[in-house]
This record gives sequence, structure tokens and C-alpha cells, in this order.
Amino acid sequence: MVDYSAPVGSYAFLFHDVFGVERLTALPGASDLTRETTEAVLGEAAKLAVDHFLPLNGSGDREGCRKTKDGVATPSGYKKAYDAFADGGWIGLAADPAYGGQGLPYALGTAVNELVTATNMALAMVPGLTMGAIAAINANGSDAQKKFYLPAMLSGRWTGTMNLTEPQCGTDLGLIRTRATPNGDGTYSINGAKIFISAGDHDLADNIIHLVLARIDGAPAGTAGLSLFIVPKLSIGPDGSNAAPNGVTCTSVEHKMGIHGNPTCAMAYENSIGELLGAEGRGLAGMFVMMNEARLGVGVQGLALSEIATQNAIAYARDRAQGRALNGKPQPGSVADPIRRHADVRRMIYNGLGFNEAARAMIVRAALDSDIAHHGPDEETRQKAADRLGLLTPIIKGVFTDRGFQNAVDAQQVFGGHGYIAEWGMEQFVRDSRIAMIYEGTNGIQALDFIGRKMPADGGRALTAFMTDVMADIARISADDRLAPMGKALAATLGAAQKAAFVLAENGKANPDDAAAGALDMLHVAGLVALGQMWLLITEAALKTPDEPDSKARLLNAQFFFERILPETRTRVARIMTPSAGLMDFHPMLDA
Amino acid sequence: MVDYSAPVGSYAFLFHDVFGVERLTALPGASDLTRETTEAVLGEAAKLAVDHFLPLNGSGDREGCRKTKDGVATPSGYKKAYDAFADGGWIGLAADPAYGGQGLPYALGTAVNELVTATNMALAMVPGLTMGAIAAINANGSDAQKKFYLPAMLSGRWTGTMNLTEPQCGTDLGLIRTRATPNGDGTYSINGAKIFISAGDHDLADNIIHLVLARIDGAPAGTAGLSLFIVPKLSIGPDGSNAAPNGVTCTSVEHKMGIHGNPTCAMAYENSIGELLGAEGRGLAGMFVMMNEARLGVGVQGLALSEIATQNAIAYARDRAQGRALNGKPQPGSVADPIRRHADVRRMIYNGLGFNEAARAMIVRAALDSDIAHHGPDEETRQKAADRLGLLTPIIKGVFTDRGFQNAVDAQQVFGGHGYIAEWGMEQFVRDSRIAMIYEGTNGIQALDFIGRKMPADGGRALTAFMTDVMADIARISADDRLAPMGKALAATLGAAQKAAFVLAENGKANPDDAAAGALDMLHVAGLVALGQMWLLITEAALKTPDEPDSKARLLNAQFFFERILPETRTRVARIMTPSAGLMDFHPMLDA
Repeated sequence: MVDYSAPVGSYAFLFHDVFGVERLTALPGASDLTRETTEAVLGEAAKLAVDHFLPLNGSGDREGCRKTKDGVATPSGYKKAYDAFADGGWIGLAADPAYGGQGLPYALGTAVNELVTATNMALAMVPGLTMGAIAAINANGSDAQKKFYLPAMLSGRWTGTMNLTEPQCGTDLGLIRTRATPNGDGTYSINGAKIFISAGDHDLADNIIHLVLARIDGAPAGTAGLSLFIVPKLSIGPDGSNAAPNGVTCTSVEHKMGIHGNPTCAMAYENSIGELLGAEGRGLAGMFVMMNEARLGVGVQGLALSEIATQNAIAYARDRAQGRALNGKPQPGSVADPIRRHADVRRMIYNGLGFNEAARAMIVRAALDSDIAHHGPDEETRQKAADRLGLLTPIIKGVFTDRGFQNAVDAQQVFGGHGYIAEWGMEQFVRDSRIAMIYEGTNGIQALDFIGRKMPADGGRALTAFMTDVMADIARISADDRLAPMGKALAATLGAAQKAAFVLAENGKANPDDAAAGALDMLHVAGLVALGQMWLLITEAALKTPDEPDSKARLLNAQFFFERILPETRTRVARIMTPSAGLMDFHPMLDA
Repeated sequence: MVDYSAPVGSYAFLFHDVFGVERLTALPGASDLTRETTEAVLGEAAKLAVDHFLPLNGSGDREGCRKTKDGVATPSGYKKAYDAFADGGWIGLAADPAYGGQGLPYALGTAVNELVTATNMALAMVPGLTMGAIAAINANGSDAQKKFYLPAMLSGRWTGTMNLTEPQCGTDLGLIRTRATPNGDGTYSINGAKIFISAGDHDLADNIIHLVLARIDGAPAGTAGLSLFIVPKLSIGPDGSNAAPNGVTCTSVEHKMGIHGNPTCAMAYENSIGELLGAEGRGLAGMFVMMNEARLGVGVQGLALSEIATQNAIAYARDRAQGRALNGKPQPGSVADPIRRHADVRRMIYNGLGFNEAARAMIVRAALDSDIAHHGPDEETRQKAADRLGLLTPIIKGVFTDRGFQNAVDAQQVFGGHGYIAEWGMEQFVRDSRIAMIYEGTNGIQALDFIGRKMPADGGRALTAFMTDVMADIARISADDRLAPMGKALAATLGAAQKAAFVLAENGKANPDDAAAGALDMLHVAGLVALGQMWLLITEAALKTPDEPDSKARLLNAQFFFERILPETRTRVARIMTPSAGLMDFHPMLDA
């Protein structure tokens, strides 16, 4: 019952009208990134998403994954859809041509990711994780490792996973117990148990390359003792052919709330042969290459499900007639008006519309920052991009998944009782999007990363640059009378945000719990400022063609954001200013 | 994996220390309602809930209901648990002794309802709907109908349902097409299709008494043409024995997001013999007796799932150790501190703690108001109670289910990845609680009922009395220095709420969409004021024994509410003050 119209036009608008990506000719592949290329590549991705991914989204949810004698079976049709993705060269779209990639900007790959995630999040995670593993091997691996692993992973013949969580630790990776024992030949024997491993085992590819955090015998406790290992499911011969099983087994497939099409596995490693990726004791840093990319990818999940849920809510609200509109003429010849004419229904839909394109703009810019951080022409350019990417990553992960879930809930609500019924597909978006608030570091952890690391990093360099940037945008657009009210609203919010950040930092010095108690609110306030900035850039670009329907839609979506979403700042700032004493006091039910 | 400790002490506290229910001796059965009786009755209900309902909550969710050759099969064990509930006399707890009820206050029945709903919402709905049908027959039926139907329903031998929704109409009941054709003998032949009928068919009882909204041949279009009918699944002989099938069939059981243990049925009525309940053309009014009770019951669902989810989040946060607390000594001999020591985890748990008991207080008082409205000593007393009940019903339904769902989501988040896994039971609370925002009138409809009917009713009589009552409580408790800060916070919120209500009403006169656009925010602001009032009463009573652990907990829970929940008013008031122009303007995607 679910339909999807890929936001190809939105990406073309953001790449070319808002961010002028053609000017970034120093990026690999970017000189070719004309509007025509963007539209052609994303048009193909849209076809793949709609023809191969979307038809399996509901059926994959119903069928789920199951453990078999030999491993794990994914839902019917997933293999064919995965092959279509792999054979289309999509895994290597943004990867190094030296290993078989196409060398296009990561930003374009991120756009493709939104399309396949919206249409089938569970399936899209499989190549998504592979791309993260490719990035980690690319950043940390030796030349030999890159040559050995990357081509088969880029082609989709092998997939990748990340193995961090264990039964006794998720957030607190210092507690990892999985051991790595040197074999004397440069390899290690890996022993331990991992849980919640997405795509930990499946029937989609010939082999699975697990990146595993483990502790080398004798290494210190805590995260400083962790190293990162490449551990294939099947040992691989020197010629790249898969050989014997490598002691890697999926011991169970979790039954979970959503993303049923993706096998979430408990894994056992029993004398599995692995090789070190990067330096000893630098495992967490190595894994963070993958984690940071994965966090952006999870933010994309928040957006992607908000987008498809909003689209379907719009279609339903146009079609379903109940009651009479409070204003305007009744629909001629009807017994009721379409529910899109009711203010409260519009409010729920606009919660999506007032978020989606600004969120997409943030993701596009973050992905471009990633491209620039890797390939920018000079150190200063690269550092500025890396600063902004680092600052905005926890916002994109935490804020986008909180809002994406809420927007899916609102879109479901538009359907009334039908929203609760499986066949309409809306409840699946709610269930699927819920995980994004949890994995790759819960949103509470994103908030602590933001206030504890990203805000104060390098004396607040990234934060200061970000705020200066927002103020410059406000100053520029305020010259246009049509934009000035938005600029004024954002300036007021930025002022309140700055004050809140200052109070949070000051309070936190005296009592770190005061800061921690306001962390999630601070993350969201920063997210509101960042989204507001995007709406300024979007409306500025849209006003070049004010009579286009798309431009009118953009102005209304932005107006809703400034009128009815941005005021969330008021509540959040009030909470940030509140000391943590009551919250942290001894509570008989919690602390006795 | 889920545990439950029934809030018997909380009810005893609310009944006897906060609301002094013993003084309400005019209520039927209330003169017997000593603290000992309350504790004894609820203690028995708690045993039933924990021994019979809770063990089937997860298994019933996994197994679900299925259509069989003969009807609908409920999950294994449901019949036995239902029988335990029925045989214990719980269905008739608050019903008229003339028909086999126990005549205890409805407020006590509502308390029982929270316990069984928390432990198995899907199953608790079956007797819950029966009680609603009993109330509707009691209010609208002839003496003969009461004598004929009520005893078997009170005993649980027959269950009851409400049949409103049809494929083409949920909210807009004026569109109902089900027909009733007079048979000339006082009965009617009912023909039509209904959907989303909870417990529409099942194997728990001997017969099912459907209350069906239908249009008598020749009746006018719209809701004025609707009448209410009693339509049993099996025709009943004059002696009360069930006879032949009555043309009532469940055509399908819906696959849905949650409450899998409750069969949500599409129903077909084919020449089913029914009898009129109440007057012709007064069907909607008759059904509203059941609907209003059901709306309170749905509010109870919001609270019940918030309560059990919070309880389990507390248990997990006490047990699970990750990371070090930012303050205080590390847990001796440990590698990590329990996550209850992290401010953000406490924040999520406190969202439940800062709501649950105040919500329970509102429900207790609303149920007492219902008792007083029916049995109060004089007209003025009855009217005041009916006024307040009518005003607060949409708040209890809409605000409690929005917050209950959000609290279930927060409690799930405390579990990290484990919250997403079915075996922990937390994700079921999220799925189950989600329906409560939708059925018995979506929360958007509750908001329109509140601003459009309840606020202006009788020249604002109920609203004025409510605000006067809140102000009197604030004035009284402010004499105590320990309570004065809460009183001050609530006074400020009440002032903002009054101003918002005034602006909403004024704007709405010129443009009804301006009011409708702010309706849900207005409902929530009113809910925050009402919850705040309950915290005043709770803390006032708790301060009589300030050193008791329960009292300390209550004061901290209230403090959290005033510090970190009540500030939501700021955002909501800002939105209420915003005109609807942008929201209602022609949008190319919605309106073209």
C-alpha cells in the first residue's frame, strides 16, 4: 500500500542551487557532478529503490530472518534486490577507483542511501554497513589489506559488519572481553561473544568480513586495551577464494520490534583467525572511522523514514474524506472534505515537511564536509570541514532520529485506525525508525558527546565557527524583506542557545551532572539552530524562482518550521537552565 | 522478563489521604470503602493481575488471535485468565446490585482496571468493553432489557462490544451506512459492515452482545439519523439460552502493530436481528455513555503502560552497570556504576515518575466525579461533578495517551539495544500503548472536543470552576514554604494557560482554523495545569509524613514535574498564539 517518490529534485536543488557543488572542483568526481549527472545517477537509484527495495519492505517485515542449519536466511527476494544493488556498482559509488570504486563524492552516495533506506531500511543496512567497513579498512588498513579486501567488498561479493557490543557492554566499550591471542604468524585467534550484530550472518553474499573489537592477551583494561581485527566468516585463501569455516557462528537471530528483514545476530567467535587492522591498542579509534560514518547513516535513516512516512500521510490526507473543513467551500458533490483540510491533520504532516528538506540539507553539507575533509585543497579547508562534520555528527544522529521517529508517529496518526493496521505500512515505519534512536550510540550518548567533546573541542573552535557562520547567513538574508522574519526568529533562538550553552558549560564546571541533565536538550537546541540555518539557505535559493510550486512549498515548509517547530527552544532552554539537584538527589525507588 | 508491582499503596494514598473518599458517604458502597477495604480489594486484583494476566502478556502478543472455522481463537491461556477475572466478580464490581453487581464505587473499578491493563492490555480490554456496554444498557435500556442482558454480562458469560466504525467512516459517524429495517414485531434486521471492532469475536464467552450504530430505513442522513441496537452474536431464547447464529460474522482479524491478544475484527451483519436500545435517532447520545467511559478507560491505558514501563526501566537502571557516574563514589568492587546514576537515564525514568501518580490522581478524581454525578446527594453536587468529568475526559484520554506512549518510548530507551528486543518486553509496551492515541476518537478529535465543546459549554461554567479550584489549591498550599515554589510555578502556568485560552477563543471567533491549529497544544496545556494541581494535592498530603520514603519519592517526582515537564507550556503557548495562515495556505503538495 506504500508509495514513494524519490526526492531527486530536492537533491538536485540542494547540490546545485543551495550548495553549488560544481564549484567544489577539488573533490574527486565532483567536477563531473553537473545537475544532469546528479539527476541521472539519482534517477537510476530511484528506480532501484522503487522497483527492487520497496516491494520487499512489507513482505520482508512479515517474513523476517531465520536461523537455518547453515546460517541465516533473509526474506524472500532480498538476495535478488541485494544483487541488483551490488551489480549496479552502488556499493563503490563513492569509493576509491584504485580498488574498483567510482570515486564520486560521498555526498552523492549519501543521497543514494536515503532512497534505498526509505524504501527498505532493513535491506539497505547490509550494503550500508559494508560501506562503513570499507571506510574503516581504507582508513586503517595496510596497502596489502586494502588490495585484498576492498575489491570484493566493493563489488558486493563480501559484506562487512561492525562487532562492538557484548552482553555486558554496549555504551561502555571498555568492558569488552573478547580476546585476541597472537598465533606467532602475525595472525590472532579471536574468542568471545558479540551481540546485536546487524547483518551478522545472512545468505546475500559469499563471505562476511567482520570488524571485531577485542583485547590482545595482556593488554590493559578499558578502551586503551582494545584493538580492531578483520575476521572473515570463511577463511580466505591467498587467491581470494573462500575456504573453510573460521569459527564464526551466529548463535541466534534476535526477535525485535522492527527491521525484521535485517538479521540482528548474536555471534560466537571460537578460535577464529583474524588479522590486526591498524595499530595495537588503537581499536576504538579505528572503529570510530566506521562509527562516524554509521552515525551519519543512522541520521539518514531518521530522515528517510520521516520522508516516506510524510509522503504517504499526504497521499492519505488528500484521499480520505471525513467531516467538513472549518473554512472554505465544501468539496462539491461530496459528503465530507478530504482530511488535508483539517488544521490538526496539516499540523502532523507539516511536522514532517518542516523538517525533511532542512535535514536533507544538513546531511548533504555534512557529507560534502566529509569529502572536503578527505580531499580538500589545503589544511585549513580540510580542518574547517572536519570541525563542522564532527560538531554536527551527533546532532544529525541524535536529533534526526528523535524527530524522524516522531514524524513517523505523526504520519501514522494521520491514518487514524488504519495507521495501526499492518497492511497500510505506516506502523512499520514507526517500528523500523525506533531503532535509530538506540544504535550507534543512544541519543543520550550523542548528547554527551556533543556537550562533553564536540562543543569544547579545541577551545570551542568548531562551535564558534558554526555560530559565526549562522550569524553571517542571518545577516545576509535579512536584507531581503521576505526572509527577514525568519532571520529574526533564528537570531533570537541563536541568542538563547548561546546563553544556554554558556550556562550549561559554567554549571558543568561546578557540577558535571548539571550539564549532563541538560545534554539532550542542548543537542536539540543546537539541532533547531542548524535546521533553521538550512531553511534560510533553502528559502534564499527558492526565492530565485518564487512562482515555482516547489518554491512555494519550500517557503511554507520553512514558515511552519519557524512558527511551530523552532519554539521548542523555549522549553528546552528552560530545562537546560535548571540545576540537576532534584534529579540527582537520593530517590527511594531508584537509589535505595 | 517483565515484572510488575501493583500500585495498591498509591491508590490507598489517593483514595484516603488525598481525596478522603470515606467522607463521600453518599456514594453507593463508599461508606464501606475504608483503607482496609481498598487495600484488600486491590490486593486481590493485584494477585489476579500478576498471577493470571502478566504471564500471558508476552505470549499472547507473540501468538496473537486467528480466525478459525467457527470464529476467532484467542491466545493460549486467555480463556482461563478471563474466567478468573469473571469468576472473581470483577466485571460487576461497580455495577448495580439489582443485576448482580457489587455496587462498589466506579473509582475502585477504575483502579482495578489499571492493574489488569498494565499486565495485559489486550486481554483487559475484553471485560473493559463489556463494562462499557453494561453502562450503556444501564443508562439507555428498558427495565426488561436490563434484566435480560445485564446479569449474564456482569457474570462474564456474555461480553459486550461497541460497533461504530465502518470502512468509509471513523471520526465522521454521520457517514454510517449500516441499515436497520423494522421487522414489524418490534425487532430490526441489521445489515452492514463494521471494522476495527475490538473483541468483535472470540472464544472467551458464550455469547457476544454487540451495540451497533445503524440507520433505520428512512431516517435522515448524518448523526441525527443514527439509532443504537443490541445485536447478539447468537440469538437468545426467552429463557436466556443461546440459540441459532444471528447472521453476525467476523470476516477478518486485523494484523496490527500491537494488542495482538485482542481480536480486532471486521464484522458483517446480515439480516441480524437486533432490538433498539434507547430512542430512535438517539443512537449517538446512547453510544456516548459507553464512549465517555471508554475514553476514561483509554486514558487509564496510557497511565497503566507508563507505570509498568517505568517500573521495569527502574529495575533495569538499578541492575545494569555501564560507565562511571559523573559524581559520587564509584560502586565499590565494580567495573562500572549502575546506569541509574547517569542524569540522562534518570531524566527518562523521571518522565514516567513525574507523570504517573498525578495522572492516577486525575483518574481517581474523574471516576469519583462519575460516581458523584450518578449518585450525589443533590443536583448542584451532581452537576459540578458532571461538569468536571466532562471537561477532563478529553484531557485524560488525549494527554495521558500521548504521554503514556512517550513514557513507554523513554522507558524502552533506558534499556538501550535490549529495549528493541522482544524478549525484554519493553517494545511491546510501545506497540500496545500506541493504539490508545488513536481509538475512541483520535487525540486530535479529543482536542477539538475540548476547545470546541467542553471549554465553552454553558458559558464556560466547567472551565471557570476548574480554574477557580486550581487557584484555591494554589492559595492554600502556598502558606507552606515547602510547597510555595510549586504553587508559584503552577500559578504562572495557569496565567499563561488562561491567556492562551482567551486568545484561542478570540482568534477562533474570527477564524475557526486559528483555534483548531492550536487545539492539541491547548489540550496539553490544560493537562499540564491539571497534573500540576494533582501534584500540589499529593505533596500536601505527603508532607504529613515527610520522613516516609514514599513521601520523599512523591516530593522528588513532583519537583521533576514542576522543573522539567511543566516548562512544555512555553512552547505550546507560543504555538497557540500563532495564527493559522501559513498552515492553511494553499500548499502545492497538499492542495494542488
